[in-house]
This record gives sequence, structure tokens and C-alpha cells, in this order.
Amino acid sequence: MAISKKVKAALNGASWVRRMFEEGEELKRLHGEENVYDFSLGNPNLEPPASLKKALKALADCPVPGMHRYMPNCGYSDTRKAIAEYLKEESGLPFEEKHVVMTVGAAGGLNVVLKAILDEGDEVIVPSPYFMEFKSYIENSGGQIRLVETNDDFSLNLSAIEKAIGEKTEAVLVNSPNNPTGVVYDQESFEKLGELLKKKSRQLGRNLHLITDEAYRRIVFDQIHLPNAFCCYPHTIRVTSHSKDLSLPGERIGYVAVSPLCEDADEMIAAAVFANRTLGFVNAPALMQRLVAPLQKNSVNIREYEEKRDLFYNSLTAFGYQLVKPQGAFYLFPKAPIEDDVAFVKELQSKRILTVPGRGFGKPGYFRIAYAVNRKVIEGALPGFKEVAEKYRAEKK
Amino acid sequence: MAISKKVKAALNGASWVRRMFEEGEELKRLHGEENVYDFSLGNPNLEPPASLKKALKALADCPVPGMHRYMPNCGYSDTRKAIAEYLKEESGLPFEEKHVVMTVGAAGGLNVVLKAILDEGDEVIVPSPYFMEFKSYIENSGGQIRLVETNDDFSLNLSAIEKAIGEKTEAVLVNSPNNPTGVVYDQESFEKLGELLKKKSRQLGRNLHLITDEAYRRIVFDQIHLPNAFCCYPHTIRVTSHSKDLSLPGERIGYVAVSPLCEDADEMIAAAVFANRTLGFVNAPALMQRLVAPLQKNSVNIREYEEKRDLFYNSLTAFGYQLVKPQGAFYLFPKAPIEDDVAFVKELQSKRILTVPGRGFGKPGYFRIAYAVNRKVIEGALPGFKEVAEKYRAEKK
Repeated sequence: MAISKKVKAALNGASWVRRMFEEGEELKRLHGEENVYDFSLGNPNLEPPASLKKALKALADCPVPGMHRYMPNCGYSDTRKAIAEYLKEESGLPFEEKHVVMTVGAAGGLNVVLKAILDEGDEVIVPSPYFMEFKSYIENSGGQIRLVETNDDFSLNLSAIEKAIGEKTEAVLVNSPNNPTGVVYDQESFEKLGELLKKKSRQLGRNLHLITDEAYRRIVFDQIHLPNAFCCYPHTIRVTSHSKDLSLPGERIGYVAVSPLCEDADEMIAAAVFANRTLGFVNAPALMQRLVAPLQKNSVNIREYEEKRDLFYNSLTAFGYQLVKPQGAFYLFPKAPIEDDVAFVKELQSKRILTVPGRGFGKPGYFRIAYAVNRKVIEGALPGFKEVAEKYRAEKK
Repeated sequence: MAISKKVKAALNGASWVRRMFEEGEELKRLHGEENVYDFSLGNPNLEPPASLKKALKALADCPVPGMHRYMPNCGYSDTRKAIAEYLKEESGLPFEEKHVVMTVGAAGGLNVVLKAILDEGDEVIVPSPYFMEFKSYIENSGGQIRLVETNDDFSLNLSAIEKAIGEKTEAVLVNSPNNPTGVVYDQESFEKLGELLKKKSRQLGRNLHLITDEAYRRIVFDQIHLPNAFCCYPHTIRVTSHSKDLSLPGERIGYVAVSPLCEDADEMIAAAVFANRTLGFVNAPALMQRLVAPLQKNSVNIREYEEKRDLFYNSLTAFGYQLVKPQGAFYLFPKAPIEDDVAFVKELQSKRILTVPGRGFGKPGYFRIAYAVNRKVIEGALPGFKEVAEKYRAEKK
């Protein structure tokens, strides 16, 4: 009973995140879970806000008849209305219910959008380092990923994007706040990206898509203002989820929103709904659609993530690590003190610290720390980070 | 902002089920919902069993810390163990936790399995009439659907399947109890199918897959014994869900089970888990995984569906309709009294009765009735069915 050759090849080059996760499981077996400092997976440690727990209890106490049945593939009208209302307030643009399609998380939403727009061989431009699943998602719909470099501080390199846009380009996919770097693209970057896409669309005689993966949108620090891509380019499609802001990653609840400024928004929505159905998602989980509708302005306590960022960033910097100070998400992406990021990550493992080598995100020589963990895990790991840094500093001398 | 050409073409040939659903919505607006008899969608009207509601309430009252977080892509260990235990008891085969992958419903599960096994151009044989989404699911992974006729009573036509198996064949996909016919394949059919697949696998020098879509497995009538495909062919993969047995279709909870008799089951599971992740499902919804685990032997009251089948079948037969008496699911698939099934379905619409033309399932000249509705909807529609039958009988004279 042979499996697909394509999948077999992919399994052999298994995800670094997954590989580290599995080696970590082994370490935990050996040393006990509490003695392993696991920063491998971006799995939020915070519980959902009390408002969500309350809503779940209210629904469980007084179930609504039919609440587990199929609904239209786009999702419940009330949920889509609540989200449209929120997006309208956030952007000032005339979002309506019809612009929102509920999806099985942001991963489901990205697959839906890519299926809706891609034909065989179409290219999607992705700034790198990047979340490697994007490659699978794009290829699932017959597309090709085209990576472009970011600047040294991981900000958008607009001239690299400009150079990459060609006859085959269908979309640019940006993720801000970013996984794996934690970097947030600023207002000017989005405005310039919007101008560039308008110019290129005119030249190509067709409208390029801007897909924004905003799964970490609510997790931003330093009171920064987050730019709104919808206001910078009319052919924007936002994909997001409540995995991080409401700490519900296991529940698979997210949505796709198409800009109301897009003249063929209706066709795009129809294509997304079709993709949602035929890719086998069918609809976003019913119960969660109901729960998140009134919680559009709620979120976990972001300040907790910010405090962890501060502790981790300040400590690593003091130990001599070089890293960009991230303003969002819950990732740090330091430069490895030696060239070989895999060797370095293995060295950290000898201190029972689990991270992911940068090559797992298209950027060898770096490593990713996912710090959505309890503070004591960070505190427990800091001595190990320090020792390894000192070891390499000594070796260099 | 153009959508995919492939999707555009598919949208133009939109699903008949969907089209009927939408025309029905219009009828409901015109006549009031209670005056339209909607048999277009297989959307279970029964509420989940009390045991599920109780489990939801218990969990909402005492949430388990971390219960909404990511878990391994294959699902919770406890849930998979409970299902393996159930399958072991049902089949007598040595199912273990590792043979089960939790999925986003059966539709998600089918996409996962097809992605795991198909390479470009591989063929999947499907007996027709069939659930048309299968075609999309197969094509999503680069495969081709190969339809084969069933017998007049919609039972498996084994010589048609034998003739269709060739160099490109990768799998046979059967759905029993069947959507749209409600027919249940008997023990002998599965045994002969197993023998045929063993013979053909030997001839081809590789093992063909048998994929069984058993979403309606619990919904069987007349106290019939349901055959177990796992016991008839070692390279069997079951895909199912709790959409129908626990009435949870909107929650998207199902699973894939790989036969423990399959010598490369481990690789198949690894491929399925990879597909679950990279297709963007990531994992089956966490909360539902937890709720269904202890309810493997529970189900809605099947007798209610059986009574509706009896009422509907007996009445239609009395009105002169020709139809196979279905022994499962909640569908009837009568012959249309005139050749043109679409014209006939429109005639029923004039009586405010919504059904789906047989061509929506690859079988023109028939029509599908989904009777998972309240009894009074059936009772309300019967006079209309009678009038239309009499009209065509009068015209024929």
C-alpha cells in the first residue's frame, strides 16, 4: 500500500519544527517534562479570556436547537456580520457580512484563498525568512512559491519584491507580525507595497492580489500602531484566526476577509466559499463560530507576552546574542553564534533547550525561539543560553 | 482581481445540491419557511444525544487547562485510543491508537487520505451514482475520478469495477450506506470486492487501496448486519465522521483509520498526518475530539430515521414512484416519472418541494430526497408528490 511519491519525498525532508518537537519529546522522556525548556512550537500557553469561557458555559447550559448542524459554507450570518462590523470600525471601509468567509483557522483560510486564485504554475511571492508551511499551501493549489529576501532587520525589501514580480506572479503573501522573526511591517512599508502593486498591476494589465496573514495581529507591543493593508491596496485579502488572540489554536477557527474596495469582491468570495467546501473543510466549526462572534474586541492579556519578550530579549542581548527586537507575535529570531544553525540548536539541546534552526524558515545561521510558554520555562533556560554563548565566545578567542 | 480559471469553470457548473438549496431559499422567502418542504440537503434534524450535551456541559463547567491548545496533528491520544478500542471490538482486528488520525469531518478525512496516496494522474474508481464532491476531492490531489456503473438496485457491479482497474488505478472508493441511494452493500459484495482487489494487486505487483467512506455507518435499518471492509481486504482505509451518528455535521469531527493488517500502515499514517497538517486542517477541532471520545457507542435514535424511511418509501411506492428500498443513511433515490430529472425537480418545486436532480450524482433520470427532516415536513410534502405523480400518469395515458 504505497503512499504518494510526492508525499514520500516531503516526509523525508520533514519539517524542522516537527523534527525538533519530536526530539524534544524524547528529551522529555529522558529528563522529565519539567526539566526540558521547549521553545519549539508556537503553542500559546495562555488560557482563552474569561469572556470565552463564560460564553461556552452559557451555550452548554442553554444549547440553541440546531447549533451543531450544517450552515452555509461561508459560515453563520451573525458571526460574519460581527466580524464585518469590527473590520469596518478598524479600517473605515464599508465591510459587509458578504466580505467575510469563516474558515478552519488561518491555515485553512490560506489554503482556501490560494485555491481560489491559483492556476497551475502561478507564482506567489513570499518574503523570507518565512513560515515554511506556506510552500505546501501554495503547492497544494498548483502554485509555486517565490521567495524574496528581507532587509537585515527583516523588514520588507521592496526592491526585491519589485524585481520578483513578473508574468507568472499572481499574489504577494506577507505575514505581519511575522513568524519566525516577530517583526511588524510599518505603515510606510505597506503604503509602498500598495503603490508597487498598483504600478505592477497596471503594467501587467491585471490586478495582483495582496494576501496578508495576520494571525498575530493582536499580539503587538510597545503601543505601536499597526498599519491596515486594506487601506493601502484595494485588492487585499486578509487571512487570520482566533488561535492567538483568543488562544484557541486547537479549535481551528479563523476567517478570510476580502476588501470591499475590490471591484470583483463578489466573485472572489464565491470562489473562496467554493474552495472552503470542496477542499473538505465544508465550514468552520459551528460552536466556535458562535462563541467568537461577540468577542471580536477581546483578547488574552498581550502584556504577558510583552513581558516575556522583554525578559528574553534583554537577557539574550546581555549574553551577547545578536537579534532584532521584535514588536509582535511570540517569536525571537536571533543569529546563531556559529554559522551552522543545526549544530548550534543541537548544542542548546544538550542544555535541554529546544529551539528550531533558521533553515526551517529558509534562513540558515539563525534560530527561532517560540516564547508563548510559562515564564519559569524562560527563566529556567536562560543559564543554558548563557553557557552556550560563553562557550562559543571562548572558542572564537 | 481574477480568480483561478479552474475554479471559475467549476463555479459555472455549480453543484446541483447547492443550486437547489439556493432556489429553495428563494422559495422560502416567497412562501414562508414553514410552507416549503426542503429535502435538498443532508442536514440531520435530530439533536445530538443527551450524552453529548452532558459532556459539553461538564467540560464548560470545569474546563481542563490547555484544552484549546494545539495537540499533535494526529489528534489526542485518548481520543484515538478510544476509537481504536471501538474498532478492535467491532472488527476483531488489533487496532491501536496509532492506526487512527482525527480529521476535520469525513470530507477532511477523504482529502487527507487522497493527498496521502495520489500522484498526478492516478485514478480512483468510484461506483456511480455517487456523492459528487468526491470528484473535487480526488482532483485536489492531482488524481482522476473513474466512475463505474452500479447494478439496477445500486448494488456494487464487480465486473464493472474489475474492467475499470488498470495501470493507473490507485484506489477504489466506496460509500456505504450510500449517498445518494441509501443502499447498503452486503457482506458478499465486500468479500468479492476484497478478493478482486487482492487478485488485481497481485497482477499489478502493488497493493491497491480500498477507501471506505462510512459517514452513515450507524444509520442502518431492518436490523441488518453491516459488513466490515477491514475484514475483507487488508489494505483498507476507513474514513468516517460523527456528523450523522452524533448529529454534529457543523462541528467537523471525524477520523481516518488504517487497517492494522496493512504491512505499511505506519507509513500510511505518517503520510495522512503530514497531509492533515499541510492541507491546512492542522488538527481536528480540539473540543469535539474530547467530547466524542467516550461516545463511540452512542448515537442519535436511528429508529426515527427508519420510521421516516418507512413513511416516505411506502407513500411514494403507493403513489406509483419506482424506487429501491434503502436500508441506510437518510436518502431516497427514486426514478423520476419522466426522463428529464431537472424538469421533474422543477415540477416538484411548483409544489414547494425541494429535491436534487439525479444528474447532481451522475445519474440523470432520478432524483434524491434527503429526509433527515421533521416528520411533519414529510407529511406536508406527500400530497405534492402524489399530485405530480398523478399528473405525469395522466399525461402518459
